[in-house]
Amino acid sequence: MVEKAYITYNQVHKLCQQSAAQILSEVNPNLIIAIGGGGYVPARILRSFLKSPGKPNIPIQAIGLSLYEDLSTSDATEDDNKVEEAGVQVTRTQWLDLSRIERSSLVGKRILIIDEVDDTRTTLEYAVSELKKDIKAHSEKEGGNVEGTSLAVFVLHVSLYSGCFTGNCTANGKFHRIRTRPRKDRYQQILNT
Amino acid sequence: MVEKAYITYNQVHKLCQQSAAQILSEVNPNLIIAIGGGGYVPARILRSFLKSPGKPNIPIQAIGLSLYEDLSTSDATEDDNKVEEAGVQVTRTQWLDLSRIERSSLVGKRILIIDEVDDTRTTLEYAVSELKKDIKAHSEKEGGNVEGTSLAVFVLHVSLYSGCFTGNCTANGKFHRIRTRPRKDRYQQILNT
Repeated sequence: MVEKAYITYNQVHKLCQQSAAQILSEVNPNLIIAIGGGGYVPARILRSFLKSPGKPNIPIQAIGLSLYEDLSTSDATEDDNKVEEAGVQVTRTQWLDLSRIERSSLVGKRILIIDEVDDTRTTLEYAVSELKKDIKAHSEKEGGNVEGTSLAVFVLHVSLYSGCFTGNCTANGKFHRIRTRPRKDRYQQILNT
Repeated sequence: MVEKAYITYNQVHKLCQQSAAQILSEVNPNLIIAIGGGGYVPARILRSFLKSPGKPNIPIQAIGLSLYEDLSTSDATEDDNKVEEAGVQVTRTQWLDLSRIERSSLVGKRILIIDEVDDTRTTLEYAVSELKKDIKAHSEKEGGNVEGTSLAVFVLHVSLYSGCFTGNCTANGKFHRIRTRPRKDRYQQILNT
């Protein structure tokens, strides 16, 4: 039987705090993409830990991807022990607004995608896949160059181990790294699924 | 001298919890707009308390408005007692994505805007003013009708009392209500500034 686990805000805070140094040294993000609604809280907390003294905050763009919420009509007040079930299709409710981003382009961005839970990997795969399409489209406008562009993922909890990311995946999978590397006009993604 | 106050995550959680019933009875929102980055955390928390049994979550759209962050280069690790200073100009880093919203229109939406702190009112005024422009533009496409459209604001903390909203402003100003009412082709905003 699946049991529901509860974590405190302080645990979330500390997970962000503990991962910040690794993220700064390995990713050094200059754009955070928060997957809403779950990614809002860790994105906001992590941003404070990623801020470098004397530098402005790392900008956050929110995207809305829903796997659970549109399909679920359950409520915690009805049955506290009910485990929310994931849907099978991602609904995209909001996407990036690039109007204030330099050249309206993701090229050259070291992107850190943040979500709350990686359960079926469906949402993360969707986000990465769509962002790679955007990066490809933007790079084509700029002559095909994607140098300096990278994608990394931070989630608070991974409940799916079998398809765990390779790369910098930690023991409990809190921090994953996905790189997009230019190889001619293709992207190679270090993602073991 | 201005002193910096610290609040716990549980206090934020409880502020959201305590306001939920009032918000449901007075606003009954069908669209949440989170002002990022500060509004992300209360928006995500409040959404859970606003969820009605048997109904899907209220959708959240994030917008990015910055008054502090782009201008501030201070960091908490440099000086914990330094109070972050507000800027004077709002920078708009992200706006609504209406592609998944019915008729791509805000008309008929009972909108709840959520932010963390209302300090100078500059950000909230900007958000309300821009949203009213959007509502006006959408309603003009639909024959001028704005029936059922409303704007309300929820913030965790108000540090500016002199210009406090009238309406449903509570003693410590945690919850404000702003209505937009159709009066011929104008909007009247119950906002005492």
